[in-house]
Amino acid sequence: MALPFEVGAVSPGGGRRAALCLPHGSVQTPVFMPVGTAATVKAVQQETLERIGAEIVLANTYHLYLRPGHELVRRAGGVHRFMSWPRPMLTDSGGFQVFSLSKLRKVTDDGVEFRSHLDGSKHFFSPEHSMEVQIALGADVMMAFDECVETPATWKRTHDSMSLTHAWAARSKAYFDAHKQEVPWAEQEIESPQTLFANSPSVPCSLSPVPCSQSLFGIVQGGMYPDLRRESAERLVEMDFDGYAIGGLAVGEPPELTRDMIARTLESLPVDKPRYVMGVGYPDQIEQFARMGVDMMDCVLPTRAARHGLLFRGALPGESENGSAIRMNIRRVEFAEDQRPIDPACACSVCQRYTRAYLRHLFIAKEPLGATLNSIHNLAFYLDTMARVRNSLAGL
Amino acid sequence: MALPFEVGAVSPGGGRRAALCLPHGSVQTPVFMPVGTAATVKAVQQETLERIGAEIVLANTYHLYLRPGHELVRRAGGVHRFMSWPRPMLTDSGGFQVFSLSKLRKVTDDGVEFRSHLDGSKHFFSPEHSMEVQIALGADVMMAFDECVETPATWKRTHDSMSLTHAWAARSKAYFDAHKQEVPWAEQEIESPQTLFANSPSVPCSLSPVPCSQSLFGIVQGGMYPDLRRESAERLVEMDFDGYAIGGLAVGEPPELTRDMIARTLESLPVDKPRYVMGVGYPDQIEQFARMGVDMMDCVLPTRAARHGLLFRGALPGESENGSAIRMNIRRVEFAEDQRPIDPACACSVCQRYTRAYLRHLFIAKEPLGATLNSIHNLAFYLDTMARVRNSLAGL
Repeated sequence: MALPFEVGAVSPGGGRRAALCLPHGSVQTPVFMPVGTAATVKAVQQETLERIGAEIVLANTYHLYLRPGHELVRRAGGVHRFMSWPRPMLTDSGGFQVFSLSKLRKVTDDGVEFRSHLDGSKHFFSPEHSMEVQIALGADVMMAFDECVETPATWKRTHDSMSLTHAWAARSKAYFDAHKQEVPWAEQEIESPQTLFANSPSVPCSLSPVPCSQSLFGIVQGGMYPDLRRESAERLVEMDFDGYAIGGLAVGEPPELTRDMIARTLESLPVDKPRYVMGVGYPDQIEQFARMGVDMMDCVLPTRAARHGLLFRGALPGESENGSAIRMNIRRVEFAEDQRPIDPACACSVCQRYTRAYLRHLFIAKEPLGATLNSIHNLAFYLDTMARVRNSLAGL
Repeated sequence: MALPFEVGAVSPGGGRRAALCLPHGSVQTPVFMPVGTAATVKAVQQETLERIGAEIVLANTYHLYLRPGHELVRRAGGVHRFMSWPRPMLTDSGGFQVFSLSKLRKVTDDGVEFRSHLDGSKHFFSPEHSMEVQIALGADVMMAFDECVETPATWKRTHDSMSLTHAWAARSKAYFDAHKQEVPWAEQEIESPQTLFANSPSVPCSLSPVPCSQSLFGIVQGGMYPDLRRESAERLVEMDFDGYAIGGLAVGEPPELTRDMIARTLESLPVDKPRYVMGVGYPDQIEQFARMGVDMMDCVLPTRAARHGLLFRGALPGESENGSAIRMNIRRVEFAEDQRPIDPACACSVCQRYTRAYLRHLFIAKEPLGATLNSIHNLAFYLDTMARVRNSLAGL
């Protein structure tokens, strides 16, 4: 069955207010997905993610494959049960991380041979193997295995890489269609789709019927070449995926180009399926892209920046151009005795309780609580940004 | 006014069920105090400490003096406001930490010159200066400045050090009596003792009137010599402190000797004032000491052990001698696929939600959430142990 995706209001700019119905609950879109690389959003408890309104989190296939191993996660009942996260999840294909993290990678038509960044051991990922691993992990949404081209790259190099990604997308889909019933929670889900984690509240799903298997998204590549982006989108749409991601962006190009590539690609994607831009971005970017018609985004930025003391807050009237979010480096001495919260307009538990002075102290003293509190605030800021955009798109 | 301390039931072994009424709330004793060295219990949010029932936490004067500085904390309104902890707090005198952490210390009758462990800068602590710093921090309970003797030490060396501690205790008390009105929250407290943090629930105090100033405890020294312990207790009691600590224990001596020194010292301390053993211990020890008549204890063990993957749990029937707590090293491979909680009998949020397999994964992957979840469980185990002892002493 097709992935239930219900588009409500659509703005003149193309932004849409929609809902995605997944086996572990519904997701209100446009949505920002916190990144939980190793089955944990770094330094943040699952209870806290629920409280700040995270409806879906991402986990990285490459990391979980290496440690603790996908078969261990499968035997635990899948990644939801393993990490005790009852709401929807998405796994990437491992492709991007193989290209950016592992040593001595060797790409052939068949797949990628690489060495673990942990211990140097040798591994091989093919489209089929990425699917096998992602089915074992059992996220609600999985991604086709793709090649990520280095940047900058010539048109020819980008075209060849894109063609390989298309061949791999077809193989990913064929394997997934033949094996999707192997997901560790398939039987429980069919029996009782919303009660797998009876002790933990799940987001109610307004759409029906609830799907009882994973969904697979294709990934549009094509680098910074609009003609290749269009060709890539068209080829993938012909293969009929449950949703479409735009990959290979935010890899060092200027923000205007990121925006332009997204706009050009969206033109070639169907309006009745979810569209996901991978690995973006700053608060202003996720708002901008959502208003252009992007439904899903993920990024390590809010949590990684938090661990480095970089906090986001809303601008006061006249404080920034176009009301852009303000970036605060909490280590600065100007915050040493600042008794205000990070963002006086923020309702998150950190802003309700702790001062900038205390957060600066925790950062300077390298106290682990600093990373936790900073991460909670930044994630809340991102999630609140998306909630505001959703309300705006719905005309509220 | 004297510190209100109400002793209820007393067991044949000397254990007492009591309550201590402090400016920021009441504390049910015997009590275990989590250690928040730098105004944070490492890796644990204040909200979580409240939820697991911590009624009082300790902060270290030496650390806060060096960073962020006691005058900064004073200007923030004291350590409660600085770290947003509305319940009672206790600060140590800095003496023990100067002796164990700082370099190039030089002791004279006047005080201790030492170098910061952070940057090597030179500092001087006298009894008067320790009091000044502790008044600026503004904990509910402060400790007299003492010298900690190295171990083992001769009777003569221990005697001389003890005598210096007594002289410093008298000077601590004189300075405190002359300056206690300088506590940063004195005026607010007098106006409205229980509403300083109206947004955050405070533990209700059943005793009245609520004191509106800090309390000062003396510290009994005397090493491993019973005659010196008795002499030290008697001298301090003559000085009439609000409570009495037993210091200089758990410094490497065998547990039987720790226990014996505590028992001997308790004999010389008044029954109507709180008794505090500093820096202990394992779960079985805190239970044992509480049943002997110790009212307060603190230790970094539950949080430090947690960060090293050492977890405590209750024994199953027949699993350990005398039902002693079991120590689990979560990194062991036997836990890799153990889908049980740390302690099936534990009601803490970690045991309600997460498996040993997941906690092992977090530890092996060096994920910060591991330290947080392990710390929450270990602290809950310690606090639950004390709650059980309190119920038992009350005949419940």
